[in-house]
Amino acid sequence: MAEATDQTVIGIDVGGTKIRGLAFDAGDPASIVAESRIDTPDGTDRLVEALLETVRRVQQAPGTPVGVGIAGLVGRDGRFLVGPHLPGVIDAPLRSILSEALDGPVAVVNDAAAAAWAEHQVGAGQGSDDLVMVTLGTGIGGGVIRDGRLFSGARGYAAEFGHMVIDPGGPQCPCGRRGCWERYASGFGLGRMARERALEGGVAAAVELAGGEPGDVRGEHVTASAAAGDDDALAVLGEFSGWLALGLANLVAILDPDRIVLGGGVISAHDLFVGPTQARLDLALMKAEHRPEVPIAPARLGPEAGAVGAGLFAAYAANPGPTSSP
Amino acid sequence: MAEATDQTVIGIDVGGTKIRGLAFDAGDPASIVAESRIDTPDGTDRLVEALLETVRRVQQAPGTPVGVGIAGLVGRDGRFLVGPHLPGVIDAPLRSILSEALDGPVAVVNDAAAAAWAEHQVGAGQGSDDLVMVTLGTGIGGGVIRDGRLFSGARGYAAEFGHMVIDPGGPQCPCGRRGCWERYASGFGLGRMARERALEGGVAAAVELAGGEPGDVRGEHVTASAAAGDDDALAVLGEFSGWLALGLANLVAILDPDRIVLGGGVISAHDLFVGPTQARLDLALMKAEHRPEVPIAPARLGPEAGAVGAGLFAAYAANPGPTSSP
Repeated sequence: MAEATDQTVIGIDVGGTKIRGLAFDAGDPASIVAESRIDTPDGTDRLVEALLETVRRVQQAPGTPVGVGIAGLVGRDGRFLVGPHLPGVIDAPLRSILSEALDGPVAVVNDAAAAAWAEHQVGAGQGSDDLVMVTLGTGIGGGVIRDGRLFSGARGYAAEFGHMVIDPGGPQCPCGRRGCWERYASGFGLGRMARERALEGGVAAAVELAGGEPGDVRGEHVTASAAAGDDDALAVLGEFSGWLALGLANLVAILDPDRIVLGGGVISAHDLFVGPTQARLDLALMKAEHRPEVPIAPARLGPEAGAVGAGLFAAYAANPGPTSSP
Repeated sequence: MAEATDQTVIGIDVGGTKIRGLAFDAGDPASIVAESRIDTPDGTDRLVEALLETVRRVQQAPGTPVGVGIAGLVGRDGRFLVGPHLPGVIDAPLRSILSEALDGPVAVVNDAAAAAWAEHQVGAGQGSDDLVMVTLGTGIGGGVIRDGRLFSGARGYAAEFGHMVIDPGGPQCPCGRRGCWERYASGFGLGRMARERALEGGVAAAVELAGGEPGDVRGEHVTASAAAGDDDALAVLGEFSGWLALGLANLVAILDPDRIVLGGGVISAHDLFVGPTQARLDLALMKAEHRPEVPIAPARLGPEAGAVGAGLFAAYAANPGPTSSP
C-alpha cells in the first residue's frame, strides 16, 4: 500500500453484492492507500450506514473527497432515483445525506459514468475529450465525456445505452420492453445466444465447460471455448460483434464521439471480438467512406474503474477546471 | 418588411431545390427585413456563388453575421463533408471560403441543428437548456441543445437520428443499412406504411386523394384523410406514432433531455399524432413510474426554422455567452 498524500481521494463502488471502497492518490490511482469490501445491504438507512462505514475504514484524514458510483438513475444533484441492485432505495438524496455526515466534498454518480470518467482521466480515454464508454457486464452501462466534461443530461439520467431498443420484435427485457440492446450485446446476451445454439445441439465445447447442461451456458463459457479455437463459439462471438457494432453505430450517429472505450467483465476477452466489432462498425457508419474511423479501445482500469472514477470525479467536481471549448 | 437594425443577421437555408435567405432582427426573428429564394445548384463553386448572391440580395450593410444551414455532415469548423442534396459538394470548407469573401462572422451548420437552435432561442424550446429536436420531413434530422449550447459532437456530426437502426430486419435504407428510424417515423415512412395498406385494399380515402393509385399514396394523403376522420388513416398514424415513440424513447435513454421539440413538414398534422406519441413515450421510458415526463412540443417556427436558426447561431457564435453550468 502507498502512503496517503494531500491528493488522496476515496472512491466507492456500490455493486450488486459488495460495496468496494478505495483510498488512492488522485494523481496516481494505482497507488492504493487503503481498501475495503463489505456486503451491499438494501434500504436507504442501511446503505448510508454501509457507505459511512466504508469511508471510516479507508479514510486517512478528515475532509478527503468521497465519490460514490452506483448502478441506476442518479440525478445531477446526487439524488439516487432507482437502480437494479437496490429495490429498497428509491429517490434517496444520497449526496446530501452523505455531505451532512462527512467533512469533505461528496459526489454520487452512475457507476458507468464514473468508469467513463476514470478512463478519460487515467485510462484508455486519455487524449479524447469526446468519448463514449460502454460497459459490457451482465447488462450494458454507459458514460459520455463531452468537451472534457461528464455528459449527464438534463436530470442526470443520460447514457442508459442498454435500454436502447434495436429490435422491437426481439426478446423480452426485464425493463418491460422488447429488443433492448443489452439483451444482445452484454454478457447476458452472449450467454443467451450461446444457449440458443446449445439447445440446437451446437457449441458443444461451451456446453462441456458449463457441466454438460445446455441451459447453463453463460458468456464466459463462450469466450473460454472461443479462446481455445472452437468454431461454434467463435461464430457466436461473431454474432455478438454484429449486435455490438449495430448499437455502437447508433451511438456514433447520435453522439459523434472520436473514441469508444469498451469496459465491463466481457472485455477481458477483448482480443476475440474488438477487432471484428471495429471492422463492422467501420462499415456501418453513415457515409463511412468520407469520415474518420471511430476507434474502439478496450478499457484499461478493470473492475476498479467505477470506484476510481467516482473518487476522481469527487475531487474534480469540488474544483472543476475550465471547459475546453466555447 | 421591417427596417434593418444593428441586430440584423442573415440566415440561409440550403434546401434540396431552393436556397432561401432571410435578413431579420436577431431580437425579433419575425421582423423580416429582406428575403431571397434562388435555385440550389450543385458543385462547390456554384454553391458558393449562390450563397454569396443570396447575401448580396438580402444584406443591408457590410459586416452582418451570416449563418448557413445545410442538410448533411458539417464539421465543427464549418467544413461541409457530405449531404443528401449536393452530390457534387464533398469535403468543402464552406465557412472559410465564405469568411474570406464576406466582412462579418460566418457560421455553417447542419440544418436540423440550426432549427434546434432557433426553437431553443425563440420557439418551442425556450426555457429548456437540454432539449432534443427531431425534424420529421422526408427523412429525419436532429439537433441537441445541451446546457444551453449546441451539442455537435467531436467532429460536428452528432444528432443524425434518422440513421439510428431500430429494426435490423426492416426495409432497406439508401444509406446502405436496414431498419433506420427514418424508414418509419418520417414523412417517407408514413407514406410507406400507408402504401402497404393501400396495396392490401385499405386506406381507400387516402388512395382517392392520391388520384386512385395505391402506389402514389404519400404521407400528406394519410394526414389529410385522418384529419377527415378516416379510421384506416388514423390506424396508420397510430402505427407511425408507435415507431416515433420508440425512437424518441431511445433518444431519452441516451441524451436525457427535459423537452422534445418535433418539427419538419409532418408536424403540420401534429394534433393527429403528438398526443398518442406522448402517451406511448411516457410508457416506454425506463423506470417511467419514477421519473418526470419528457414533454413533446410541436415546433413553432415552421419552414423558416433552418434559416432563422442559422442566422441566430452566426450572431451567437461570433460572441458566445457564458455556459449555464460548470
